[in-house]
This record gives sequence, C-alpha cells and structure tokens, in this order.
Amino acid sequence: MTSTARAGDAGAALRVGLFQFAPRLGDRAANLATIAAGLAAIDAELVVLPELATSGYALPDRETALALAESPAGSPGLTALQALAESRGTALAVGLPLREGERLYNAAALLRPGEAPVFYRKLHLFDREALLFDPGDRPPAVTAVGALRVGLMICFDWVFPEVARCLALAGADLIAHPSNLVLPGLAQGAMATRAIENGVFAATANRVGEEAFPDGERLRFTGGSQLLDPRGRPLLAFSAEESRGGAVTLVPAEARNKRLTPRNHLLADRRPALYAGLLGDGTPDRAGDA
Amino acid sequence: MTSTARAGDAGAALRVGLFQFAPRLGDRAANLATIAAGLAAIDAELVVLPELATSGYALPDRETALALAESPAGSPGLTALQALAESRGTALAVGLPLREGERLYNAAALLRPGEAPVFYRKLHLFDREALLFDPGDRPPAVTAVGALRVGLMICFDWVFPEVARCLALAGADLIAHPSNLVLPGLAQGAMATRAIENGVFAATANRVGEEAFPDGERLRFTGGSQLLDPRGRPLLAFSAEESRGGAVTLVPAEARNKRLTPRNHLLADRRPALYAGLLGDGTPDRAGDA
Repeated sequence: MTSTARAGDAGAALRVGLFQFAPRLGDRAANLATIAAGLAAIDAELVVLPELATSGYALPDRETALALAESPAGSPGLTALQALAESRGTALAVGLPLREGERLYNAAALLRPGEAPVFYRKLHLFDREALLFDPGDRPPAVTAVGALRVGLMICFDWVFPEVARCLALAGADLIAHPSNLVLPGLAQGAMATRAIENGVFAATANRVGEEAFPDGERLRFTGGSQLLDPRGRPLLAFSAEESRGGAVTLVPAEARNKRLTPRNHLLADRRPALYAGLLGDGTPDRAGDA
Repeated sequence: MTSTARAGDAGAALRVGLFQFAPRLGDRAANLATIAAGLAAIDAELVVLPELATSGYALPDRETALALAESPAGSPGLTALQALAESRGTALAVGLPLREGERLYNAAALLRPGEAPVFYRKLHLFDREALLFDPGDRPPAVTAVGALRVGLMICFDWVFPEVARCLALAGADLIAHPSNLVLPGLAQGAMATRAIENGVFAATANRVGEEAFPDGERLRFTGGSQLLDPRGRPLLAFSAEESRGGAVTLVPAEARNKRLTPRNHLLADRRPALYAGLLGDGTPDRAGDA
C-alpha cells in the first residue's frame, strides 16, 4: 500500500460514489468542467468515473489519442484532476489515455489527496482499442484509499475473471471499474458474479451518449452504472440514459469476511495446486482426458 | 479424449437434456427407478442429472454415505446406470457418491454407451459435505460425447471461476453441472457469466424437494435447472418446484467460436504472464502496490 491513512482499519466506513456522464469526444477542457461540476454534487471520499472520461472514446487515430493523453510526469488533465481531488478531499478513479515514452495506454488513474497518482493500464483491449493503445504490461494491483483497498480494472476486463480474481487475491475490498460499455446488461450481470465469487464491492461507472468513428461506425454507450455489495446486490443502479452522480457508505469489513458458510471461505477454499491450466495460453491440448 | 466417435466434428448437432427431480434420501433403488422413468421421456444423446442423484444429499454420516457409494470397479448403481446408458443409447452425467479405497468423493460419472466411465471428483465441498467427503484431487478435465467435448463440475464449484475456466482451456464445449443448489438464483446467474466468459454451453441440473439432517437442519433445494448457450441465454429453464425433463439441440461449433469481435478472442486475449497471482493460496501479501 502506498497510503497509510487508516489502511487496515476495516471497520471504518467510507463514502464511495459513481459519476455517469457523456464525455465530449476530443474536448478535454469541457470534460474536466463536467467532471468538476458533477463532483460538486457527490458527497464521497472516492468517486469512480468512466473510462476515457477526459478524452472521449471514438478517437480516430493514435495521433489524436496521443495529443489528448496524460503523462505521469505531469500534463494538463492530470494536474487538473489531482487539484480537484485535493480541493474536494475526494479520491478519484478515472479513465484517461496515458502516454509513457513511446507507449500509449487506455489507463485509469487513482488520484488521492496528498498522495502520488497510481495508474492501471488496461490489460484486455476491446475491438478497435487495439489499433490505438498498447496493452497493459503490469499485473493487477491494489491501492489503499483510507480504510478501503481499491483494485482498478477497465471496461472489457469484466469478461476475464482473472482480473477481478487477481485483485481479490491481492486484497481488494472494492473493484473500481471505469467503463465505456456498449453491450447492454452483459457486464452488469457479470460484475455481480465478480462481486459474489470474490466477496468484494464492485463499482462500475459507465458512460452514456453516442459517438462515431470517421468511417461511420456508431457506438451507443449503455449507462447502467452500478455499485454492488459483496453478495452482488445493487447499492446504486443508474439508468441507461441519465447523467447522474450518487454515493453510498461502504464498510470495508464486509468485503473481508470471505465466509459463505462456517465451513467455506471464498479464497481459502481455492485449489491452486489443481489450477495449473489457468496459466496456459488458451491453446488447449485436446489430447488430455479424465 | 477417450472417445473417438465423431470427436472434432464440431458442425454436428447433438441433443442435450436435463432431468430435474427429487431424489429420495438413502433409497438408491427408488432413485434409479425414477431416473429410468425420467430418461424414457427425454430424447437426447446426453442427459445431465443432479448431484448425488442416486443417494440423496443430507447423508447423516460417512458410514451411511459409504454404504450408498458407487465404485469404479463395479457397484449396483453404477452398473444399472451404465446399462441404462447402453439400452437408451444416451450418455449420462450424473452425481453420485464414489468410493475409491479409503477415499469417498462427491463425484459425477460420465457414462457413455460402449465406453468406460469417466469420473469427476468435486473440488470445492460445500458446508457439511466436508464432514463426509474427501475433496477431489485431480484437475478438471474434458471428455468427448460424440462431437461434443464435455467438462464436468458439481454444484458449489460454480463459485470458483477457476473450474469453468480450466475446463474451457482444456477444450470444453459444454459444462455439465450436476447440482443440489440451496441458494436461490445465485448459481443460475453466475453460470450465465461462466457461459459468457468462456464461450461454452452450460447445463445445470438441479434437484427439487426438501431434506433434513439428523440435527433438524432443513435444506430446500431450489430447482431452476437451466441449459445456457455460449452467450449465457437460456435454451432450457425449469421452475423451482417441478420434476421435469427436457432437451435441446446444440451445435458444438457455436462453442468453438471464441470471437466476441473480429479483434477479440475469449481465450487467446488472456494475459497469463500477468496472472501469476491466480496460483497464490488466498493469503494476499498486502504490502504490494501499483
């Protein structure tokens, strides 16, 4: 953990919020203004925002994406968002394009008052994202926000149970999941499974609105942002259309009780010695049999 | 694969069925008769039946379970079920207690006409099952039933994404999931996620009815058997109460197309080099950070 503030005080409660909106493609200044206005109406110590919230999604080419990208060494959007975190006393989990040397990532930044930024670089790129971005090259990791241990993943990572599982095994209480979902409902249902199977809170902040690529392919983002408890039950659930913020109070201890029954523990019951196949490359050896 | 019959002919269609019923606790002969009658009404080349379908669930102690257990070397229930498979020309995936030397497993047998039985031994025991059974000690594996590659898992294994993932990576087209579920709805939703994330058919055969342990703890089994397509959509869905059989035609090729988009493949997009945490023991090192 980089943060020592109350980390490990699992009994402490923390307000966690979502902000669902429609970023404007290519207009960082407008998006930062929308984010600042949205946060002013959310009373929370951590707010999760959509994927690529500063840039919009349907970036036409890598050059455009690079021009909108933030830098860990300092860049206009990142500086503004960190200042917002400081002035509001609110941590932010926000999607943005991130440039590091020659590499360009679809990333999420975790920005905390008084702390250095932490970044997650999306491991599983969706569709055309692979034409713009480099895939993430570091394992999923967990960072403290006060008493809450937060793991970041982005949008299409929902399909891969390995991401949420790695985060839970690294100690996550909450999965913060900035998204730009276009397949209605699928991710929301799967995130309930992620919450249940790992015993974690799961906060999916999706965007709304429409965008188009230069070739005319249109994307309609499906909203439906949600914050689920460790049994997969919704604490917050937004509609498919609205721009909206909201927050609820979470008790990290709820995510640290991994017992489903007195004899069952979601993580300790795993049988890793029999899971060697999980590190295979997806080219099954079909000669094996029981 | 032990079966060579049409294995790999992914275009071939196969009828797969479910049989949901209420086994009678401790009465193997009655349960075998119910199974024979149920199968007579199901037109299928593979039928999935509940967990512990020959014995019932709330076995009071290990001695009782041992007395009802089948043996790979030959035992009354296994012999009768294999004969049923032969006479009907139908493969069966059926839950039963299985004794091997000093070990007793909560197992599923895959019984195919003209083939040797294949067994799966439940890896993740639920609640009191740990008092009766030894946990399975072999990795999940896949067996051919005609053109269909079948992976077995049992009931509470649904909570652990590793099981279905190992089966998919081993080439499963269908997950056959004999169950005695008591938590209403949770497993059904999670199995939709298992189908979607792995691109496989998923056949959960649950039981109905009630049983009680000697100390009075009552169990109500929640039915809701379902057969899902590789996008998690129900092809069969039974109610919480009824005894019922049914079957649908599956095309294995649908489960071998792992492309969600032209640029995304459910298995090949995985990043196993970054998933080393998956083989950890569930005791996270909370000193790590991004």
